[in-house]
Amino acid sequence: MEKEVLIFGHKSPDTDSICSSIVMEYFEKKQGNTNCKAVRLGNVNKETQYVLDYLGIEAPELIEKVEEGQQVILVDHNDFEQSADGIENAKILSVTDHHSIGNFRTAEPLYYTAKPYGCTSTILFEEFKSFGHKIEKKEAVLMASAIISDTLLLKSPTTTEHDKKALEELAKIAEIDINTYGLEMLKAGTDLGDFTAEELVNLDAKKQDKDGTKFVIAQVNTVDIQDVLKRQEELENAMKAEIQKNGLKLIVLAITDILNSNSEIIALGENADEVIQKAFDKKLENNRAFLEGVVSRKKQLLPNIDKSI
Amino acid sequence: MEKEVLIFGHKSPDTDSICSSIVMEYFEKKQGNTNCKAVRLGNVNKETQYVLDYLGIEAPELIEKVEEGQQVILVDHNDFEQSADGIENAKILSVTDHHSIGNFRTAEPLYYTAKPYGCTSTILFEEFKSFGHKIEKKEAVLMASAIISDTLLLKSPTTTEHDKKALEELAKIAEIDINTYGLEMLKAGTDLGDFTAEELVNLDAKKQDKDGTKFVIAQVNTVDIQDVLKRQEELENAMKAEIQKNGLKLIVLAITDILNSNSEIIALGENADEVIQKAFDKKLENNRAFLEGVVSRKKQLLPNIDKSI
Repeated sequence: MEKEVLIFGHKSPDTDSICSSIVMEYFEKKQGNTNCKAVRLGNVNKETQYVLDYLGIEAPELIEKVEEGQQVILVDHNDFEQSADGIENAKILSVTDHHSIGNFRTAEPLYYTAKPYGCTSTILFEEFKSFGHKIEKKEAVLMASAIISDTLLLKSPTTTEHDKKALEELAKIAEIDINTYGLEMLKAGTDLGDFTAEELVNLDAKKQDKDGTKFVIAQVNTVDIQDVLKRQEELENAMKAEIQKNGLKLIVLAITDILNSNSEIIALGENADEVIQKAFDKKLENNRAFLEGVVSRKKQLLPNIDKSI
Repeated sequence: MEKEVLIFGHKSPDTDSICSSIVMEYFEKKQGNTNCKAVRLGNVNKETQYVLDYLGIEAPELIEKVEEGQQVILVDHNDFEQSADGIENAKILSVTDHHSIGNFRTAEPLYYTAKPYGCTSTILFEEFKSFGHKIEKKEAVLMASAIISDTLLLKSPTTTEHDKKALEELAKIAEIDINTYGLEMLKAGTDLGDFTAEELVNLDAKKQDKDGTKFVIAQVNTVDIQDVLKRQEELENAMKAEIQKNGLKLIVLAITDILNSNSEIIALGENADEVIQKAFDKKLENNRAFLEGVVSRKKQLLPNIDKSI
């Protein structure tokens, strides 16, 4: 039997990366591509675990790298920095993603479906529709959870009409109340107590490489920013270790209040003061800045920092 | 009024680049995006002119570069090397393409639709279907011509079942006989007599940049390879000038016999012998090699040279 096609989202997987991988496996099988399976590139976070427990399903298998020539399907990312080790020499069959495109290169043509939506699962929802595939309850729970997670219950500025429409329809099939289920799920993800500082910094960290300048934007969700800031010294030490280890120019940790839609950032690096000043017109004090109304890495943190760095 | 969204294909435009730009303008207008127009990044070749004359329509306006912040829609390419000057600072709204992905980067999420088909117009055909838009006769002629051109009448190894199906349906709407119309159109493109050597080398040339190593693969179609080779010395001089001008490591000119589906290549550059040997297991003699069954830059010439260089 030919080797299985592996389907995965980004490193430090979030709920969209895990759920969209699993849904993509179902989708591919409905399309007749039976020899494929969802895998993951890192630990399942507590928010995602809530979803898997709700459905009573196992997390996809953990993989560390892909072999040369391995056939893969990427969801929720395209940047090789955020993908499996060895991705440069894999055969990428398709990408389904909602991020900007960069550090991505293939030797051969492929399927690539990107839409500027709030969530990969919203694109998958439209693919199910477009190919006339029925959406099962389990699939609906997975896609709805991904949308709730990525859009913070439709409150993030990344949210589009497409996400709203998809979530509304998926919630019906999933038989969930969006707010009740959504808040429970998001809160499950904010239980940060038993993580080490190093784990917190790596929980949802995205490496960026801008023409050789490497930087990281990490994010944790909380219902109490002050509670996380109690550990600032410990977090900064972990961030400094990341700078050393990966030769980073900058590392930003966004502590995002999911109830009030604000973020406090901690920023360290060579010109952190200057970069943050230019990006958000805010002075770092004690390495921190409060960014009112900022919750989205993709739409708010990344484009501003990317321009400013 | 807001500035128009510009729609264009690659530099040295071929029939797919021109026809797909025009069709995309119609498609966008059907989608309600009325403030857009097709433009082109270079001269219309004789094959494409045949199509425009057949329909009695004008070529899109020629542009040289795009301003910062200009909203654009790309068809039939993604590589910035092959796109408009200034593309790095434009706002790319969407890409519809059938090539491998490289040298492409955006600051923000976008629509990106790639499929590994023989022609961009085949993807557009499926988009019309998917959105339920009726295909008009003029649109059908444009898309059918692009497919015939890119697949050399469905004989190129890039041809997929999707291209065949699309061309069959489009030919009916266009009221053309595929073979009669197709051969006339392809032959119109092989009339190379009044081009200078420099023009021939640039007629359909694609610049590649592999991690800073620049090379060009140019292609001309003919019904008589020997007839083109009479001008070998003159062509080589023009190729050497390109190497000088653009700091190329390699330049390959493929002279493709569209009737018998073979190519003779002329290759010049630092390690041209070595690269061609490794890519095609063929020794260059008098800077030339005959590649039996090779007609596709995308599927045959580029991947082999890219790996070998």
